[in-house]
Amino acid sequence: MSSPLIGRRLALSLQKNLWLSAPGCRQVSKAAAKAEVEFDYDGPSMKTTVPGPRSQPVSHSYSVFFQNVAAVNFFCNYEESRGNYLVDVDGNRMLDVYTQISSIPIGYNHPALLKLVTNPNNMSAFVNRPALGILPPENFPDKLTESLLSVAPSGMSRVQTMACGSCSNENAYKAMFITYRNKERGYSAPSVEDNTSCMINQAPGCPDLSILSFMGAFHGRTLGCLATTHSKAIHKLDVPSFDWPIAPFPTLQYPLEEFVRENAQEEARCLEETEDLIVKWRQKGKPVAGIVIEPIQAEGGDNHASADFFIKLRKIATKHGCAFHVDEVQTGGGSTGKFWAHEHWGMDDPADIVSFSKKLLTGGFYHKDELQPYRIFNTWMGDPSKNLFLCEVLNVIRKENLLDEVARSGKALLNGLYALQVQYPGLLSRARGQGTFCAIDVCDDATRDKILVRTRDKGILLGGCGQQSIRFRPSLVFKEYHVHFFLNVFNDVLAEFK
Amino acid sequence: MSSPLIGRRLALSLQKNLWLSAPGCRQVSKAAAKAEVEFDYDGPSMKTTVPGPRSQPVSHSYSVFFQNVAAVNFFCNYEESRGNYLVDVDGNRMLDVYTQISSIPIGYNHPALLKLVTNPNNMSAFVNRPALGILPPENFPDKLTESLLSVAPSGMSRVQTMACGSCSNENAYKAMFITYRNKERGYSAPSVEDNTSCMINQAPGCPDLSILSFMGAFHGRTLGCLATTHSKAIHKLDVPSFDWPIAPFPTLQYPLEEFVRENAQEEARCLEETEDLIVKWRQKGKPVAGIVIEPIQAEGGDNHASADFFIKLRKIATKHGCAFHVDEVQTGGGSTGKFWAHEHWGMDDPADIVSFSKKLLTGGFYHKDELQPYRIFNTWMGDPSKNLFLCEVLNVIRKENLLDEVARSGKALLNGLYALQVQYPGLLSRARGQGTFCAIDVCDDATRDKILVRTRDKGILLGGCGQQSIRFRPSLVFKEYHVHFFLNVFNDVLAEFK
Repeated sequence: MSSPLIGRRLALSLQKNLWLSAPGCRQVSKAAAKAEVEFDYDGPSMKTTVPGPRSQPVSHSYSVFFQNVAAVNFFCNYEESRGNYLVDVDGNRMLDVYTQISSIPIGYNHPALLKLVTNPNNMSAFVNRPALGILPPENFPDKLTESLLSVAPSGMSRVQTMACGSCSNENAYKAMFITYRNKERGYSAPSVEDNTSCMINQAPGCPDLSILSFMGAFHGRTLGCLATTHSKAIHKLDVPSFDWPIAPFPTLQYPLEEFVRENAQEEARCLEETEDLIVKWRQKGKPVAGIVIEPIQAEGGDNHASADFFIKLRKIATKHGCAFHVDEVQTGGGSTGKFWAHEHWGMDDPADIVSFSKKLLTGGFYHKDELQPYRIFNTWMGDPSKNLFLCEVLNVIRKENLLDEVARSGKALLNGLYALQVQYPGLLSRARGQGTFCAIDVCDDATRDKILVRTRDKGILLGGCGQQSIRFRPSLVFKEYHVHFFLNVFNDVLAEFK
Repeated sequence: MSSPLIGRRLALSLQKNLWLSAPGCRQVSKAAAKAEVEFDYDGPSMKTTVPGPRSQPVSHSYSVFFQNVAAVNFFCNYEESRGNYLVDVDGNRMLDVYTQISSIPIGYNHPALLKLVTNPNNMSAFVNRPALGILPPENFPDKLTESLLSVAPSGMSRVQTMACGSCSNENAYKAMFITYRNKERGYSAPSVEDNTSCMINQAPGCPDLSILSFMGAFHGRTLGCLATTHSKAIHKLDVPSFDWPIAPFPTLQYPLEEFVRENAQEEARCLEETEDLIVKWRQKGKPVAGIVIEPIQAEGGDNHASADFFIKLRKIATKHGCAFHVDEVQTGGGSTGKFWAHEHWGMDDPADIVSFSKKLLTGGFYHKDELQPYRIFNTWMGDPSKNLFLCEVLNVIRKENLLDEVARSGKALLNGLYALQVQYPGLLSRARGQGTFCAIDVCDDATRDKILVRTRDKGILLGGCGQQSIRFRPSLVFKEYHVHFFLNVFNDVLAEFK
């Protein structure tokens, strides 16, 4: 195991020399920026600390009618924002490596999207929001084919759009429950008792079924989703929940390739416990209708597991008759270097349900033919105008080979993070990632928060996750020179904390 | 009691003569249409039965990847739809008295909304969807003040936007749970046990609190909402639920003014049982944190209750320390003749929470200062582009006095329905309504469904609700002459069923 390690370290050292050299290197990056992403800015431009003086009065007026104003970072000037750069109301221009909690796919004000809005053919989609489930627009099947179906996960040919990530997961759970009970009933009509008991929330009509989730998971904040979310107490506190099984998610050691044996043991332990829980909950009379999991636990701290783990978990699900739901709300849309993170598993039949939102601009879920969402319904069921945008986003991704770009930028970013954690061993650890979907741990949460603020004041926006991690969530137009620029600034900031 | 009844019947008879006279009367209506709502069509124009031949192949291609295609009525040409008229792919133009399940406020392709999309100042709002909770656009507080806050319910100065109706109610429930527990804790920090137990879905962190709802209610289809929805078994079947109390909603006799005494008794019975349930669930260790109710049960069959009932219910909630949540997702936005249906109760302090969606174009909820949604959060938390549309819709409502128009149209509609049920006593009964938010019962569901299809083939779109009701949900630009046109056609259809 030692020789690849030396190889990697050597490569890192070379890489490091490249971007940690001198201010001149930054000039090169800036010049490149203009050529490659025409609509992008050259670099950050900071006029004040953030939030600046113009954010304060707006914030004050906001707090009068919006109690959650404490969560507001600052107010933005989206008109002036472009590409990788978010501009605030004080005119500060920041390289955005967080992108609205990972939800901006191809940067701000992308010309292709602006053009779409000014196209008179699209006007109707904006002003006439239909009840998609009963009265879809004529072109909706075509637009679905052109957008969501063109990137359908392996083995899945059906899709249901929804308004947001939570609704996507809530309805995916319902599809799993309905399918499970249909199977139990032998696909016959529900009994009179089923129909009457469900009206008063009682079994058998409202059955004691469960969804198995993993400790550290985040699947949303509505009541059903929240019963499967276990990332932070503050999300769950005071909200009634369901007695559903919660399996341990593997706690791996990084870099993964250095701890193959230890990590495999840890994953085996988690899989064993998962299977035990399925059996135990069945015995408790609360059978597991479905298993839900993120390919990388995002909010929970960017926790990874190996392809082998997911392959084995999928088999356990099939063995016990549980539907397998892969939640790609945060991982989907290209930032791992593949359009779906589960593609890294290399499976033909990776899941029964894959849910999405954020970068896909519309919520929803794909599902296999066997899953039965006949009774999934609400008024809007998505928004066709979001689908139009998604068509354009996918065109841009293809035309500009953005997945390759992400793989390239991601490699530079992860290598840079590896080098930095060698350079700042007391400060940084556990650099990890797939594509640009990367993270690194800081020694404690207070230092992490200070680093985030200092980096922001130097013109780079980052986000935290988990207990003490920094997560990187740039858009897909985040290029290698953006990575180098970021690493230079980050290095400057870290030096202050050494 | 007999004399006002005679008076009403006499008035109806006059009214009836007016619209049931001759085809000439329709001509008058048509002429008026053009003058008053310039962007509207003159009347329906039917080329085929519905769904027509062009809807079929689209429907077929849709079914390949969209399993719920059975629910699709037909495919629409939204580009050609205008005002009160929905055009389908076969070129059939129908007077829309259902408006996408009551969600189109001022008709299709309203010029004010089209203008908004072409205004370059608004482009950014469409292409840069922010994470509103952390990085709102500079103008968002102003836009909220201009839109949602300008129509805030009495006693409520705070608002939280959301993406859809279900999310609005889910998060409103969370706000009620959090507030209840905060009060219980004496506003001190949660204990270590609270924080650890909630991570595994257990009490005390995830407390055994409940929301009291009413039989026949509809509050959405996600798991939390669904535990308070009791309109149809098919919505709830196979989905796990909570053991929460369900009170009887008054079953009133119509017309309300003829059964004042009987209805008051029925309402008293329901209120007494509601209070008993609150006590019972407290004793069971599942205290009621909030009561949720619609001002008119919509999906459940357009069930009304008196102002007196709601006033007393609100007092019961206060007495027992339950938050009072009025769900105006379907009733809000003007169709009852007031902007909020609860305004008909004449209270200064009608509720602690009022949720909305549909005609408001964005989901969300208003709440009193005391309610604490500090921990209400998700990625998008609404969509600023929908708020822009809402600003325009409210401008149009004010400029064109649409609430007065609705009151006028509604009166004509309800009087017409009263007359028709006198004319077709074996077929129709229980005409009821507020503004244009009207309904009438048909002798059985099979006949109801046939009437809906026949009326559609004659160019008028209606919707069903409850067991055997027809509901009327026109947009706010549905004028008196549209009512007369509808009543003439409806009369022709009913004559076939006599």
